[in-house]
Amino acid sequence: MNQKIRHYTPIPTQWVGPIKIIGNTVNDEVKVPLATYETPLWPSTNRGAKISLLCGGIRATIIDERMTRSVVLKADNAQQALDTLTHLHENFSLLQKVVAKTSRYARLIDLHSQIIGHLLFLRFECTTGDASGHNMVTKAADALILWIIEQHPTLSYASISGNYCIDKKASAVNGILGRGKNVVTEMVIPEAVLTKNLRTTAEKMVTLNTQKNHIGSNIAGSLRSANAHFANMLLAFYLATGQDAANIIEGSQGIVHCEVRDKDLYFSCSMPNLIVGTVGNGKGQDLAMVEEHLQALGCREQRNPGENARRLAAICAATVFCGELSLLAAQTNPGELMRSHIAMERKG
Amino acid sequence: MNQKIRHYTPIPTQWVGPIKIIGNTVNDEVKVPLATYETPLWPSTNRGAKISLLCGGIRATIIDERMTRSVVLKADNAQQALDTLTHLHENFSLLQKVVAKTSRYARLIDLHSQIIGHLLFLRFECTTGDASGHNMVTKAADALILWIIEQHPTLSYASISGNYCIDKKASAVNGILGRGKNVVTEMVIPEAVLTKNLRTTAEKMVTLNTQKNHIGSNIAGSLRSANAHFANMLLAFYLATGQDAANIIEGSQGIVHCEVRDKDLYFSCSMPNLIVGTVGNGKGQDLAMVEEHLQALGCREQRNPGENARRLAAICAATVFCGELSLLAAQTNPGELMRSHIAMERKG
Amino acid sequence: MNQKIRHYTPIPTQWVGPIKIIGNTVNDEVKVPLATYETPLWPSTNRGAKISLLCGGIRATIIDERMTRSVVLKADNAQQALDTLTHLHENFSLLQKVVAKTSRYARLIDLHSQIIGHLLFLRFECTTGDASGHNMVTKAADALILWIIEQHPTLSYASISGNYCIDKKASAVNGILGRGKNVVTEMVIPEAVLTKNLRTTAEKMVTLNTQKNHIGSNIAGSLRSANAHFANMLLAFYLATGQDAANIIEGSQGIVHCEVRDKDLYFSCSMPNLIVGTVGNGKGQDLAMVEEHLQALGCREQRNPGENARRLAAICAATVFCGELSLLAAQTNPGELMRSHIAMERKG
Amino acid sequence: MNQKIRHYTPIPTQWVGPIKIIGNTVNDEVKVPLATYETPLWPSTNRGAKISLLCGGIRATIIDERMTRSVVLKADNAQQALDTLTHLHENFSLLQKVVAKTSRYARLIDLHSQIIGHLLFLRFECTTGDASGHNMVTKAADALILWIIEQHPTLSYASISGNYCIDKKASAVNGILGRGKNVVTEMVIPEAVLTKNLRTTAEKMVTLNTQKNHIGSNIAGSLRSANAHFANMLLAFYLATGQDAANIIEGSQGIVHCEVRDKDLYFSCSMPNLIVGTVGNGKGQDLAMVEEHLQALGCREQRNPGENARRLAAICAATVFCGELSLLAAQTNPGELMRSHIAMERKG
Repeated sequence: MNQKIRHYTPIPTQWVGPIKIIGNTVNDEVKVPLATYETPLWPSTNRGAKISLLCGGIRATIIDERMTRSVVLKADNAQQALDTLTHLHENFSLLQKVVAKTSRYARLIDLHSQIIGHLLFLRFECTTGDASGHNMVTKAADALILWIIEQHPTLSYASISGNYCIDKKASAVNGILGRGKNVVTEMVIPEAVLTKNLRTTAEKMVTLNTQKNHIGSNIAGSLRSANAHFANMLLAFYLATGQDAANIIEGSQGIVHCEVRDKDLYFSCSMPNLIVGTVGNGKGQDLAMVEEHLQALGCREQRNPGENARRLAAICAATVFCGELSLLAAQTNPGELMRSHIAMERKG
Repeated sequence: MNQKIRHYTPIPTQWVGPIKIIGNTVNDEVKVPLATYETPLWPSTNRGAKISLLCGGIRATIIDERMTRSVVLKADNAQQALDTLTHLHENFSLLQKVVAKTSRYARLIDLHSQIIGHLLFLRFECTTGDASGHNMVTKAADALILWIIEQHPTLSYASISGNYCIDKKASAVNGILGRGKNVVTEMVIPEAVLTKNLRTTAEKMVTLNTQKNHIGSNIAGSLRSANAHFANMLLAFYLATGQDAANIIEGSQGIVHCEVRDKDLYFSCSMPNLIVGTVGNGKGQDLAMVEEHLQALGCREQRNPGENARRLAAICAATVFCGELSLLAAQTNPGELMRSHIAMERKG
Repeated sequence: MNQKIRHYTPIPTQWVGPIKIIGNTVNDEVKVPLATYETPLWPSTNRGAKISLLCGGIRATIIDERMTRSVVLKADNAQQALDTLTHLHENFSLLQKVVAKTSRYARLIDLHSQIIGHLLFLRFECTTGDASGHNMVTKAADALILWIIEQHPTLSYASISGNYCIDKKASAVNGILGRGKNVVTEMVIPEAVLTKNLRTTAEKMVTLNTQKNHIGSNIAGSLRSANAHFANMLLAFYLATGQDAANIIEGSQGIVHCEVRDKDLYFSCSMPNLIVGTVGNGKGQDLAMVEEHLQALGCREQRNPGENARRLAAICAATVFCGELSLLAAQTNPGELMRSHIAMERKG
Repeated sequence: MNQKIRHYTPIPTQWVGPIKIIGNTVNDEVKVPLATYETPLWPSTNRGAKISLLCGGIRATIIDERMTRSVVLKADNAQQALDTLTHLHENFSLLQKVVAKTSRYARLIDLHSQIIGHLLFLRFECTTGDASGHNMVTKAADALILWIIEQHPTLSYASISGNYCIDKKASAVNGILGRGKNVVTEMVIPEAVLTKNLRTTAEKMVTLNTQKNHIGSNIAGSLRSANAHFANMLLAFYLATGQDAANIIEGSQGIVHCEVRDKDLYFSCSMPNLIVGTVGNGKGQDLAMVEEHLQALGCREQRNPGENARRLAAICAATVFCGELSLLAAQTNPGELMRSHIAMERKG
């Protein structure tokens, strides 16, 4: 093999679904491609998809969206950092103009900050159209640094990325201040479906969620995370759709909340940091399979900027919901997880 | 496209290196395949690889290895949970026998626990030969649950996975108790190399590491994580070598520590949770490209169980080191990150 | 006021209880002094104490005890750090002898470690009799450093305290590896008592615990913490009994777990890091009120070393249980918290 | 002792200082009372105070202030929660009016939120004059809940405190969104002072801060915390001035950042969550010693609402700075910590 040229690593991929989705972004039944080496993920997610058809659909609500980049500037002392910060807040519209010049799609919507000693951390927060926006906000941040230092010449450059963004690291800031799409998925599953299709009960599911996802995660020293395996579905979805899959790190920091309602089950997955885009790296002509997947998902339509990406986020979140529901149901029964893994791998 | 059958999502892949590695596991120069949609990662990691050749090699030290699964059992109260726990510690060799029957390669080496109210969380810790070991420890845990409940019939099953393992979630437990290979990589980079090949200085690097990786990560509410982008290299390496790439979540929770030594730079990456395997899911005949990559990495040799996997871990850690060094050097200079991204993507 | 001499700040103190306690350490009814500026704490904790009398007592189970100090040593590289660590584990009995010479009461029971680059963090773990043990382990660590550097002259001193201990800081390590007493308290509260004495129901309590202590703490980015106000009772108990009250930081990182059992409520508080002592700073002749309190609590008896401190820990944990139960019950009803605060402060 | 009546637990107290403070809030030399059972704290903090006189004063900059309370409301689903939230943001001025009616001093300045499934967490953020404000925001939140449910009758009460506030728990949210005063203290210490008065060097201090406060805290799984013992000074200051000392939990989550500047030392302590008040619980006629302390600190003057509390916060932060500087300097030298502890306790 000539090691200088680009080649391709083929990841096994299969369609699951259709998944029925309702809510403020998608109202549709959608088949979803999942690219993964962990082949038991397909039948497991598929089981969840079937449940979505039986229960009127998974409600996916997009709460918020933004992409962020934090820079670090050095001031002489905290007072100077504070004065600069005050000035920036007073001139936010000027900052917005600086950003607008760097891209047709980037729009500065908020600014958060931290002052640590004489260091000023600025977290620029933008909407970025259909792109996940990593590069767009870096470009914007580059321009903002130049503008700020011009206005405040006593400050100097420390870093284009100060890890208060924060990209692809286990942290709390993204869940609290937002990064990517914030999506909640939820559905009520009737007792009969629980019994027949998931071999479980509402009470068993709520007990498991408390003991495993809440208490277990807590004692593991988890951070803003209470779920069984959001990461698996996210990874497979991200790879199939040309996303920067390292963003599963913040993406997987989400919460399962469920309740017994009469004998039915209210089940929800809250994912505040779903970073997806339908344009940018990982997409385009030389990646025909990704294009095919995005087209089949209905994310290659002529729409207002951002709408294709929001559609993709809602479908992604619903896919995570399906896989999470299915695995938790399996774990309510002793031995079922291992038995089904073995069965699936034999078939696989 | 017939959506029922399996197809493949091809991930762009390129070789970087060779990387020179020394230490208690690998003493070799190795070319490394990286599968990623983020193509600027290749030249960036490659720049680090070149540095490794100029400085006598990256020292990769494997500190520890284990794979874990935690189960949850319900007792009547905390006292009963404690009595059971005491009994299990006293009969650890019997637990080892139970595990040994489930696999030729699984060996129970430790047991940690938490008692929360009447719930008993048991974290079983095994070596697993050349496998990453997820399924091996699940199978072992299944057998252990049966054995424990037989011995302590007042206890009952709560969950096969209690999230105290913890798999693919941002947490503290894995770094503290271990999961996967614990690998430290380090190298001293002379001043001349810093200036010429990385366009930086030792002092600039240490300042940036403090302000970005330590302070910036801290204020972001990060957990056991102080690095710029371990996740990117991990993801690309994992995909190219057939790993369960969702394990980048714990894998990326590592620490960069560097020091000025005279005017040279001591640079190190500590990665306590590198989960890799050379057998199991993601490997095998139907994944020819993965096999080719593993073979080229020298991880398909006849060796004692575990040696191929440890070799893979050391190479993986050295690859992360290369990419981290290169990006941090770029970020010490204003504007360089964006300029090189743009240049690489044009070339890319 | 002559500002050079010592004077005293008087903290308002009142007795609550008696609290009925059962379990592996205390089987008794005990009145408890609470020193606090937050006077509504007294009637609130008292309400919980009354419940303990009605329900057969709070079961307090001591799971574990230890005090820790971590030191940092510098090696040339990670390999040397690892070799040293291996040697220390092989010669653990020699380390125990070094510790035994520093105090009649300190006994080295375990050693945990972390290697970060060339830095070796060693966490020495001791039992310390009736003392909380901060100074005892510092003295032991001082001696161990000398001994280790003598054996391994290539290593050098970095710090007597490496924050991997970790003392009085919000972290995960203490809950996972232990520091102080690990105590679980639990009790089943019949429906009638819930309704009449706490104006609530089992279901309301479980729902509140999930939504506030588990989900709410989670989204706040809490770490190993799921409770309403452990800190308040701990502070008041610590001040009244001469403890180093800054240890409420790790002490308050505990978990409430409760369940509906039929219509009764199983309620538990798990506190893995309760740091208390009956000898040492804060105790002694010149602190007569503390002595009086300890005596009334039955912690000034002639017993085997450690037994008085364990008794104090069990009483402390039961006190926390009382206050937590009472506040949560109040918060299940809209407006009750504020109304009772106002009423109590008027009375107070 | 008649156990029904209130008595007092006397905490040993001594004055340290004067501390020289400069900046946007205090420009003064102030003696500070510290109430603690840990008597070595006095000479240690005093050593730092002396340094402040030699170096032109500790610059204390107040960055922000607010007190918060989060409530939880139940909606039917996430969409309804989102609609409500949108409505609240659009009618923020009405919310402000509701709050203004509950207190002369409470002013609603911001609102943050989280939607988890169908649960709506609202974090109300107020300025509260000279009070720390816990009760003021609870009262405000009570009124806001009533108003919101009146406007949105499909929502219902879940909890008056949803732990997204978050009070007295180890978490990330308070540092990121603010709670209490956000204060940065900083000072440059010349080489001669370091050598003579602190027996250390700038380089030694920076190395120790990196290895202990940053790396050590990181591997301990600490959260937004990088310091040696902020908690000790905070506790002693809080007790002496009538504060709710359980707030040392968030108060101690702060960061030491220092740098070598030529051979001098830039040293800073960033404390984003300093919760203090000069009115409210713990103050008043029946607590004469607290009143005496507050008066001596100059916090009983006729000033605009909030100014006395801000003065107290700046003094508190400067006190923490003194103790932190002194202990870190001691830990740069092997054996010094233990020797000085022993010496002080003998004298003590």
